[in-house]
Amino acid sequence: MTTANSGWKGKHVLVTGGAGFIGSHVADVLLGRGARVTVFDDFSTGFREFVAPAREHLRVVEGDLLDQARIGEAMRGVDFVFHLAANADIKDNLAQPRKCIDQNILVTQNVLEAMRAAGVREIAFSSTGSVYGDTNVIPTPEDAPFPVQTSLYATSKIAAEGLLSSYALGYGFRAWIFRFVSVLGPRYTHGHVMDFWRKLRRDPSRLEVLGDGKQQKSYLNVTDCIGAILVAVEKAREPINIFNLGHDYWIEVDKSIGIITKAMGLSPRIEYGGGDRGWVGDSPRILLDTSRIRALGWAPAKTIEDSIVETLDFLVKNAFADRRS
Amino acid sequence: MTTANSGWKGKHVLVTGGAGFIGSHVADVLLGRGARVTVFDDFSTGFREFVAPAREHLRVVEGDLLDQARIGEAMRGVDFVFHLAANADIKDNLAQPRKCIDQNILVTQNVLEAMRAAGVREIAFSSTGSVYGDTNVIPTPEDAPFPVQTSLYATSKIAAEGLLSSYALGYGFRAWIFRFVSVLGPRYTHGHVMDFWRKLRRDPSRLEVLGDGKQQKSYLNVTDCIGAILVAVEKAREPINIFNLGHDYWIEVDKSIGIITKAMGLSPRIEYGGGDRGWVGDSPRILLDTSRIRALGWAPAKTIEDSIVETLDFLVKNAFADRRS
Repeated sequence: MTTANSGWKGKHVLVTGGAGFIGSHVADVLLGRGARVTVFDDFSTGFREFVAPAREHLRVVEGDLLDQARIGEAMRGVDFVFHLAANADIKDNLAQPRKCIDQNILVTQNVLEAMRAAGVREIAFSSTGSVYGDTNVIPTPEDAPFPVQTSLYATSKIAAEGLLSSYALGYGFRAWIFRFVSVLGPRYTHGHVMDFWRKLRRDPSRLEVLGDGKQQKSYLNVTDCIGAILVAVEKAREPINIFNLGHDYWIEVDKSIGIITKAMGLSPRIEYGGGDRGWVGDSPRILLDTSRIRALGWAPAKTIEDSIVETLDFLVKNAFADRRS
Repeated sequence: MTTANSGWKGKHVLVTGGAGFIGSHVADVLLGRGARVTVFDDFSTGFREFVAPAREHLRVVEGDLLDQARIGEAMRGVDFVFHLAANADIKDNLAQPRKCIDQNILVTQNVLEAMRAAGVREIAFSSTGSVYGDTNVIPTPEDAPFPVQTSLYATSKIAAEGLLSSYALGYGFRAWIFRFVSVLGPRYTHGHVMDFWRKLRRDPSRLEVLGDGKQQKSYLNVTDCIGAILVAVEKAREPINIFNLGHDYWIEVDKSIGIITKAMGLSPRIEYGGGDRGWVGDSPRILLDTSRIRALGWAPAKTIEDSIVETLDFLVKNAFADRRS
């Protein structure tokens, strides 16, 4: 059977963070398209449950990306890298200011150096829409006015983006950089749906909400996200390819809460923390201009509302995903 | 005697890279304004000759900023930090890709952490106009379209900028970020004037030039640079203050060469390396929009042409500055 995406068949793909939310979906889709996949993960936030059961073309390497020798070994014979491993805990950066630097900057350079040593030249990377900080251009295009970084998380991601583009120009790499909104769907393990779900399980009578409930944010279903990533990698072939990924609308936190409480059959008292944002460095309004990726023929198929319900459904049916709470 | 700038009198200022080109001028000017100054330098590129002779209000700490304990000690009792220590060797980044990460990102975080531990909250930082990459908006304002980073050097500086702004928002710091063009004048120790001067001393009959000689770049005299920095620190009081610093015009490399060869009394054969830029990551056209700093009353006093001659004069009279060639 031939498919439109037979370009991955027989390719050896390394997925860092391949046991995580997005990484495990990337691994599954590529295995389905006939790729050989090496998952590299330290299982600190990834789950063994997310990695496809043992099969012929899958290899799982447990390791720390700060260990240059370990990633160097895993890189041998690889054709393409999806670098999705990261410290994505944006809210708690200020408690551990060095963590983002290590996990998102140093680790990214280790991956790039391992690629350089092994002669691997193509890499896709998960950045974040947070790099636009408190932009007042909404929806925000990739070439929005030079933003001031408002969090260590976004700072570490913009640094990693710069490493990729510098390696692309300096060493002949080809890089795909994806600036995501928050992603929802099966295998989701952190974010506002998780936070609200945890709180409501603990006390169904009330819900503490950071900020004023009026923050407006766009979200994307993981299936649409993976689809966009693969379209971009297959069709965009510049040395440096940067794409926003998100839905074409946003919803208010209060609306999310309504969807979640309705799905859980609860009517909690809502207690707002106050202020216009959830935490220092939070951007109260996130909506990305996705014209660039849409010009390649991609469009999201799932609504944000359905994605929230799907996420909650996953959490209800997979209690293990909450075991690190 | 009172002066308009008596705000520095009695303040204890730490200058990292205080034995370097710009840092040593900052130290001298602040000592002259009555500040107590601690110079922190590892003397890897700084010079003992640049540090003011022993005087009552000057302390010199020799140390490595990667040594958190050492910078922590030096930070005690400090009121204000000028963080000017950096790996500024933009041309050779690709030979040592980890160096910029260590010297410009990790070191900056060490300085910020030492400040946090000691309760120091104000920091001025030397970034670079290179963060605008290959922008097509010229002159380039601070809020130019979000640039793609083209060098590890600029990547490390934009990461350090993000650390400063994140600390400003997260921990209540106040930060001044300066995006410089190349700086010229006394104590200049690296850049195109040095490169050309060295080559012509070795062989006065010919001069190899990277690129096609048509690159157009703005420069700033160190005296004007220090003046701008101090005006900004004294007058701009937002949590995060970002300023371009540069002259309001540029000159072609060929014109620089004419000034240098004339001053040296030479007529070498010029041999161009070719291409539109000097090295990977070089920006062939650099002219910053300095409206923001000019709005505070600052303007450069010295021309680029005079600054090139002044730089060459310094090199001729201070051969020690070439000892690391």
